[in-house]
Amino acid sequence: MDIVHVGVIPPYHLNACKLFINAKKNVLCEKSLAMNTKELKEILDSAKKNNVFLMEAVWTRFFQASVEIRNLLAQEYIGEVKMVRADYSLPLLHMSRSDQKDLSEGALLGLGIYCLQFISMVYKGEKPESIQARGVCLETGVDETVAVILKYSKNRMATFTCSAGVELHSEAIIIGTEGKIQVLSPMWCPTSIIVDRKETEYPIPERCLSLNFTYSTGKRYEVEEVRQCLLKGLKESPVTPHAYTLLLAEMGDEVRRQVEVVYSQDCQ
Amino acid sequence: MDIVHVGVIPPYHLNACKLFINAKKNVLCEKSLAMNTKELKEILDSAKKNNVFLMEAVWTRFFQASVEIRNLLAQEYIGEVKMVRADYSLPLLHMSRSDQKDLSEGALLGLGIYCLQFISMVYKGEKPESIQARGVCLETGVDETVAVILKYSKNRMATFTCSAGVELHSEAIIIGTEGKIQVLSPMWCPTSIIVDRKETEYPIPERCLSLNFTYSTGKRYEVEEVRQCLLKGLKESPVTPHAYTLLLAEMGDEVRRQVEVVYSQDCQ
Repeated sequence: MDIVHVGVIPPYHLNACKLFINAKKNVLCEKSLAMNTKELKEILDSAKKNNVFLMEAVWTRFFQASVEIRNLLAQEYIGEVKMVRADYSLPLLHMSRSDQKDLSEGALLGLGIYCLQFISMVYKGEKPESIQARGVCLETGVDETVAVILKYSKNRMATFTCSAGVELHSEAIIIGTEGKIQVLSPMWCPTSIIVDRKETEYPIPERCLSLNFTYSTGKRYEVEEVRQCLLKGLKESPVTPHAYTLLLAEMGDEVRRQVEVVYSQDCQ
Repeated sequence: MDIVHVGVIPPYHLNACKLFINAKKNVLCEKSLAMNTKELKEILDSAKKNNVFLMEAVWTRFFQASVEIRNLLAQEYIGEVKMVRADYSLPLLHMSRSDQKDLSEGALLGLGIYCLQFISMVYKGEKPESIQARGVCLETGVDETVAVILKYSKNRMATFTCSAGVELHSEAIIIGTEGKIQVLSPMWCPTSIIVDRKETEYPIPERCLSLNFTYSTGKRYEVEEVRQCLLKGLKESPVTPHAYTLLLAEMGDEVRRQVEVVYSQDCQ
């Protein structure tokens, strides 16, 4: 066995990851990798100590559309980036565990992570200068909708909204001094981008078996990245390094602090 | 003469309005009516004292599309409103006065006012429970881009972004528990809305003379409202009453405080 793919619900990630990592297994763990920064550091430390590969499964990064976005940004095709916006909503509240805080990861960790990862990708892992967040929570304390304003160095900004309750757009846009890149819905598994009013499609691989979820074949891009990392003996992916996973967790903690979402894991 | 339409630049509104109001003239003044709440209260007080009609010229409210939106909301056609978003960007920085703080009103007072008015219309003039704002300013201190999160009672929210520098969408959306209403660009003079995926157009009156600005004939809706108010002897429009203009100014002051935009008028 080359690697274990941890896909249990997020509150169980810590124990599952540590179980396999301590058994010297490489781990690909679903996002959000941990419930907070404290848990994440524990997992990252144990991966380092055991010298295994570990990656947060943010599959979005490996879609062809995402690769093209990174290429365009590297070429400064739209000039200097000034503003990034990302939104992700998906009514999840019909799911039985969705409003139970000890079983659910809420709108931020479940959906907002895609927005945070997109913004952090565009701003190349830079830490924002400030974070402003507000949201609304269910009676159980699970966050239903969260809106965030991020300010970066050199007067650059980003905003995102995620919701497990109301239906918003699920698109993203990068605005530069010379143009813009629009990622059409669904931004979390992007198959179409618009640059200079020209739309380009990046269809996901054809399926040869029936799927439980649309877009599942898009997972192949991520799997190929993991394969390449393992073949090269890498312990983290250069596309989603540990530092980047840590940044997302730290930003998530700050947003949750402002939205007043406290998990039992935060109090341990 | 029935009424004076004050259309000088906003820093001169206070003096121009008071000049005409003290001469017992009715006044329709361009938005933003004043540079801050203090100036606005002075204008409102003088209108009351002189018993004249006064209205902030937020023409958007009188377009047929806006009337239809208010009808739909009154019927609770989209259920209970949970989220409102509005964006307005218009690259203004090529204008000679645009970066000079004593001549310009900046992105918030110049463009954001349209977002604030839209959100306040949807939430029927309610004061938000909290305002979170961040923005970036030009070296002259003029605000270029501003992003705001508003939280209202009963777990309802709104967000808006306005920019005089970068090109964003200029659309608005109202999301309710039973559906959504989308206002297509340009949201500041709306001619098309989408409800339940069905687009309805509300074309503005045909022009019979050449226009300096597109959509100018849409001003007729506002003029008709003013005419009706004057015929009825009203001193304020029931669609944009003074209390609503005051609320916009107070929200604007709080946003500017957080974005750190200070006008000379604030220090007098």
